[in-house]
Amino acid sequence: MLELRLVQGSLFKKVLDGIKDLVNDANFDCSSTGFSLQAMDSSHVALVALLLRSEGFEHYRCDRNISMGMNLSNMAKMFKCAGNDDIITIKADDGGDTVTFMFESPTQDKISDFEMKLMSIDSEHLGIPEAEYHAIVKMPSSEFARICRDLSTIGDTVVISVSKEGVKFTTKGDIGIANIVCRQNTSVDKPEEATVIEMNEPVSLTFALRYMNSFTKATPLSNIVTISLSNELPVVVEYKIAEMGYVRFYLAPKIEEDEEETKPEV
Amino acid sequence: MLELRLVQGSLFKKVLDGIKDLVNDANFDCSSTGFSLQAMDSSHVALVALLLRSEGFEHYRCDRNISMGMNLSNMAKMFKCAGNDDIITIKADDGGDTVTFMFESPTQDKISDFEMKLMSIDSEHLGIPEAEYHAIVKMPSSEFARICRDLSTIGDTVVISVSKEGVKFTTKGDIGIANIVCRQNTSVDKPEEATVIEMNEPVSLTFALRYMNSFTKATPLSNIVTISLSNELPVVVEYKIAEMGYVRFYLAPKIEEDEEETKPEV
Amino acid sequence: MLELRLVQGSLFKKVLDGIKDLVNDANFDCSSTGFSLQAMDSSHVALVALLLRSEGFEHYRCDRNISMGMNLSNMAKMFKCAGNDDIITIKADDGGDTVTFMFESPTQDKISDFEMKLMSIDSEHLGIPEAEYHAIVKMPSSEFARICRDLSTIGDTVVISVSKEGVKFTTKGDIGIANIVCRQNTSVDKPEEATVIEMNEPVSLTFALRYMNSFTKATPLSNIVTISLSNELPVVVEYKIAEMGYVRFYLAPKIEEDEEETKPEV
Repeated sequence: MLELRLVQGSLFKKVLDGIKDLVNDANFDCSSTGFSLQAMDSSHVALVALLLRSEGFEHYRCDRNISMGMNLSNMAKMFKCAGNDDIITIKADDGGDTVTFMFESPTQDKISDFEMKLMSIDSEHLGIPEAEYHAIVKMPSSEFARICRDLSTIGDTVVISVSKEGVKFTTKGDIGIANIVCRQNTSVDKPEEATVIEMNEPVSLTFALRYMNSFTKATPLSNIVTISLSNELPVVVEYKIAEMGYVRFYLAPKIEEDEEETKPEV
Repeated sequence: MLELRLVQGSLFKKVLDGIKDLVNDANFDCSSTGFSLQAMDSSHVALVALLLRSEGFEHYRCDRNISMGMNLSNMAKMFKCAGNDDIITIKADDGGDTVTFMFESPTQDKISDFEMKLMSIDSEHLGIPEAEYHAIVKMPSSEFARICRDLSTIGDTVVISVSKEGVKFTTKGDIGIANIVCRQNTSVDKPEEATVIEMNEPVSLTFALRYMNSFTKATPLSNIVTISLSNELPVVVEYKIAEMGYVRFYLAPKIEEDEEETKPEV
Repeated sequence: MLELRLVQGSLFKKVLDGIKDLVNDANFDCSSTGFSLQAMDSSHVALVALLLRSEGFEHYRCDRNISMGMNLSNMAKMFKCAGNDDIITIKADDGGDTVTFMFESPTQDKISDFEMKLMSIDSEHLGIPEAEYHAIVKMPSSEFARICRDLSTIGDTVVISVSKEGVKFTTKGDIGIANIVCRQNTSVDKPEEATVIEMNEPVSLTFALRYMNSFTKATPLSNIVTISLSNELPVVVEYKIAEMGYVRFYLAPKIEEDEEETKPEV
């Protein structure tokens, strides 16, 4: 039997809103240590990994490992029916073919339960090795979202170039060229407003803006986004979920024909 | 001659917004006692009844009974031109074929008048007998609107079941089943937040959510909605208009083939 | 070389948003005295004139007169990427075929530059003679925008009639007739709420509401709009830009067949 109770239920809503555009159907894997998901997007280009550790739940019971296939857009429809202050409980019987979502209003005057059919989804769990990254950028998640949105009005791809002084986002389109530079800045009033760059060596990589924009749907989960870049590896765009885990997005860089264009020049 | 002056003119706007999706053309009946309307929706399934008593107006003059046929969406277009704080006056001459809406800004600096052609509409006034209902639910109108909207993302019909403990709203669709229970609750800080159930016998009835959602367009008229249910009768969904009258919606229940499903089980 | 720096960069955004619906491509003319534009709308009915005087800029350098052809909707896309508090700099080299827009966040932590190709646009500068107007109406710009929007739900043209007591806006459509009268009113708490009428002789002119509604896109530029009317001349709808200049829209009146209808009758 599975029973997960989360008082701050709006977090589930944000997680779903953050990944449902990218992933249609996915297996949620529950074990005694936590609730997790790993799935490729429907075009098999980007990878999403979610982890919610058991310690973050008010009540967490998972008698045996269970993998539940769910349609995320249906699930999101149901979670939209939860109030923002509702307590959310996810329940499933071992071997059952349904999952139940229970939403309790803070005053306990309104209690909703939604039952959804589970699906059988083929999936292989990819091992994602811990890696060393050439550069790690931490910046306000809303700023990153704004930059991806702004650049996508001009072009289709973004070159992210990191130097010690800052991170540069560049795009090019029919109407012109755009460069946005965010300088390293740690002397801010609130830590979530800082832009912090850890750099071992300069890096400059090109990505499809379409995916970057999808990743930024997870912005409400965290004030800070962490972008880890390496020349040989997919970028990792991570939104930490306070005291519980994270949502991570992985995306392979595009190989540019004209290497000149992608040199770091911040 | 007809002349009705309402200082709180935004109320007329809300009334129109509340019924114009359901009713296209309708006769407004004016007499010395008040301003009223009774009309079937365009698919002849639901009935709307509006009453604004003469006492609620700052000035109310109606020399003789008059029935004015109006197109509600045209009327709503005109009323949209009234400011929320405007004083609204409705004027018509006996035997004339137009009606005039006058909007005065609170400072009297802006005065608008809109003249609309009247229509000739065939309609028969249905006598709605006073009835005894098995159960009467009073609840926050915004909560009822939220429930109807939420459930319509899952299914097409709602089963409303009332027991002494509460009222249950149930729907079923391709993606799953949803139950929302609102418990009787009278110990709230504000009376408009109470859910109050008067029940003579348990009742469980099925309705098309599409109509329920249309009815909830009247939500801005009142903090409280009253839902009166009886096994043999159309449901009445009533929004009281403070000190003036009401908007009431009537809808016949659907006959379920599988009676088991509609039993009250709150 | 051209370099114009405006600390209150949002003003550029508002100017563009105010004129981009009306004008597609236009030449921006820069001289030592200021930054200006004059363009017909795409259907060659309305004329837009913009002036931003050099004194209004924090830094203004224009070595020689230059006329830069730009696509306004592309330009608006780029300016949308500027934050509302950003400092905006426009830069161009003499004889170059690009213009650069630089956006600096107030903290200087984020610096964007957008490079746009210039276009070659044929245009003739119309001399607009200073004229005497029969009537000049100053009124809150939001009120004028509201009236144009409201009337366009009823009809296609507006008759603007000015008398000493006020200004009347009239339209007629299939669903009815609308008159909105704004009375002269100078005894208001805030000067921007006044409606002030200077009248030499009564005037009543008819205009296409479609254009009037386009002009009101410039409403965010100023709390006050000035409407100058004369029987033989195009109306001038002017939004002053504080301490810098103005956006003016010119529109020729329609010739009504039935002159009776357009007589002033406020």
